[in-house]
Amino acid sequence: MKPYNELSTEELLALQSELEKKFEEIKAKDLHLDMSRGKPATAQLNLSNGMMDVLTSDSDLIGEEGVDCRNYGVLDGISEAKQLLADMSEVTKDKVIIYGNSSLNVMFDTVSRCMTHGVCGHTPWSKLDKVKFLCPVPGYDRHFAITEYFGIEMINIPMLETGPDMDMVEKLVAEDDAVKGIWCVPKYSNPQGISYSDDTVRRFAALKPAAKDFRIFWDNAYSIHHLYDNDQDVILELLEECEKSGNPDIVYKFISTSKVSFPGSGVAAVAASENNLKDFKKHMKFQTIGHDKLNQLRHVRFFKDMDGMHAHMRKHADILRPKFEAVLEVLDRELTGLEIGSWIAPKGGYFISFEALEGCAKAIVTKAAEAGLVMTGAGATYPYGKDTKDSNIRIAPSYPTPEELAVAADIFVTSVKLVSIAKMLNK
Amino acid sequence: MKPYNELSTEELLALQSELEKKFEEIKAKDLHLDMSRGKPATAQLNLSNGMMDVLTSDSDLIGEEGVDCRNYGVLDGISEAKQLLADMSEVTKDKVIIYGNSSLNVMFDTVSRCMTHGVCGHTPWSKLDKVKFLCPVPGYDRHFAITEYFGIEMINIPMLETGPDMDMVEKLVAEDDAVKGIWCVPKYSNPQGISYSDDTVRRFAALKPAAKDFRIFWDNAYSIHHLYDNDQDVILELLEECEKSGNPDIVYKFISTSKVSFPGSGVAAVAASENNLKDFKKHMKFQTIGHDKLNQLRHVRFFKDMDGMHAHMRKHADILRPKFEAVLEVLDRELTGLEIGSWIAPKGGYFISFEALEGCAKAIVTKAAEAGLVMTGAGATYPYGKDTKDSNIRIAPSYPTPEELAVAADIFVTSVKLVSIAKMLNK
Repeated sequence: MKPYNELSTEELLALQSELEKKFEEIKAKDLHLDMSRGKPATAQLNLSNGMMDVLTSDSDLIGEEGVDCRNYGVLDGISEAKQLLADMSEVTKDKVIIYGNSSLNVMFDTVSRCMTHGVCGHTPWSKLDKVKFLCPVPGYDRHFAITEYFGIEMINIPMLETGPDMDMVEKLVAEDDAVKGIWCVPKYSNPQGISYSDDTVRRFAALKPAAKDFRIFWDNAYSIHHLYDNDQDVILELLEECEKSGNPDIVYKFISTSKVSFPGSGVAAVAASENNLKDFKKHMKFQTIGHDKLNQLRHVRFFKDMDGMHAHMRKHADILRPKFEAVLEVLDRELTGLEIGSWIAPKGGYFISFEALEGCAKAIVTKAAEAGLVMTGAGATYPYGKDTKDSNIRIAPSYPTPEELAVAADIFVTSVKLVSIAKMLNK
Repeated sequence: MKPYNELSTEELLALQSELEKKFEEIKAKDLHLDMSRGKPATAQLNLSNGMMDVLTSDSDLIGEEGVDCRNYGVLDGISEAKQLLADMSEVTKDKVIIYGNSSLNVMFDTVSRCMTHGVCGHTPWSKLDKVKFLCPVPGYDRHFAITEYFGIEMINIPMLETGPDMDMVEKLVAEDDAVKGIWCVPKYSNPQGISYSDDTVRRFAALKPAAKDFRIFWDNAYSIHHLYDNDQDVILELLEECEKSGNPDIVYKFISTSKVSFPGSGVAAVAASENNLKDFKKHMKFQTIGHDKLNQLRHVRFFKDMDGMHAHMRKHADILRPKFEAVLEVLDRELTGLEIGSWIAPKGGYFISFEALEGCAKAIVTKAAEAGLVMTGAGATYPYGKDTKDSNIRIAPSYPTPEELAVAADIFVTSVKLVSIAKMLNK
């Protein structure tokens, strides 16, 4: 296909008329489709149903360190759960604290703690005139929502194919001691599916922040969430790199089993240096007597070890892969060569990120909604919901069926085409 | 028995010598007993084992409102869990939010939220020069630890037989707008087992605080934790009383199933006015996508309703009652009439509170430890760990067996007698 910007006005008008006819036909079908939420499908949930059978009234409920998992105690998690989530985090067991059901909750609480009590003895952020966070964009809306909620100023950092623009990160972090943190989804990033290069990880590990209480919020949400068996991204383990760089305290790693077992009924964890873990626990001991140890035990008994977890993730991949491919097939077939949008085919994670022509994203999402397709709100992938170029759209293919996704993708590309033509005609 | 203060020095010395002999005999037994922790015994945990069988891989896991409890979503709890915990809280379902595994965690988060974001639009407490909390004493050490951790000044309020000294509460709350809250355990209070009188509850409901953001932190931890079937304390439901007084926003009620099902694997909830719940949810929506709905469902399927829960609590009572009675029997038999200590026989809850002669509590706890009995540290029941009279000791009879408790109580009373005699002889 010819790029749209090489078409004459007449050609564009003819195409528009044809696409509008098609669009009206789709609308007439009164469809209700949803590509907005990074939510596992029912078939994926079914994969973990066996987890509900591993603990019964006859089970041995004593943890390997002798603790009755039904009673109070064990602030930082039972030993076997630490081992499992340490393995998942690619760190040793002594570098892990087990939390409750959600890593988002841990991240929120961490920012909250930094606000009220500061980082490792430094001034609480709430006592400072200004606190800033770096936000690689496009990124995860719930990260940005947390920092916004706490009144933290957010600075956009463009995502490159290798991860965040490290020149910019290094400069801002070194120059401004108000910069206290950065949000990262280092593997199969939300929404682009980008995995940070080794160079990027090493540059993170070697950062020289002006603020001694600067921390990297490393949300490794999709660490084992591959789509392919033989084509997987591997990223360097940051904590070890930080230790090598003499920077062991610079990172908080967050992880959870939310998209491994059951979202909402999983187990979350933090991996960090000894100093940082002490800081976490100092707060934690006032906040709780301990998290749900039975659920920790349930996870360990079900997955057994990382081999078990990887085997389980291959089953997730078998369900997710055709869905991603259904969407990508339509994008490839319908949009390649038109120069009205770009995307990356991710090798894992939960999203496909679509970069429309400038000023078109909102209109595309609105257009798609007219035909019964709900997309993530345009702008959601940017701090304050402000995508100044109005071009990024997040596609979440996990919940609908591949058949529904083919239809949804068709609505999407039709909307992209119509909005792009309208933009060109209005020039 | 004659009161000790009516004994002559010779009589005291003779008694001391006799008791010391007895104490040495006990010490020789090399006992290891623990009355320090309000922790359910294994037999109590066993009562809830069936809870692990109610959800299996074959179960219907769709909540009554159609939500798949295995997936993301439902910020404030599934409908049927709201109903159960609303019933437990004696409020209607619309006045409840379901949280995670621990009401302590919810209380901590609530104070944290008040610090960073304030109460219903009022100035965040962290921006104020001074924030004060009223603390009925003796009370729950973990409450006091939270307010201390956030730098909130704590003011002791004496507990009377009817609850906190309301003359003092009313006066302080009305006069000082830095007073932002009060910690209450209104039923079978920790540690005294006192239940607030109707008059006390009504006076709470009718408070006229100088601070518009004053809140009563009403931790109804032992609401259904009776020891006797036919002799139970009943307290007025505070939220309704507050509504009647035109004061609906003044209270946060906290509740959990920690000592009903499994500590650490229970379900917690807040009951409050519509305004307050909005305020809670505004915060919560940044903090989490939702709590563990499978565990909520598990609780509902296991208990079914309040009748089920009450029947379950009677089984707890059957285990706890002989333990309380074993301790009280020894206290009654050995200390009645001696005027060297007082206590209340509670009708529920988890503790017996012992009031020793002034200046004796620490010495008694130390003495008991010599004979192998661990007690809660003296002072723990007071803010900052400071019992200025050094007289309160918390006894936790739930974990040991009745037989162990009889021995432990014997060590305790012997320690009380020895320390009291020493005090009298040193006068």
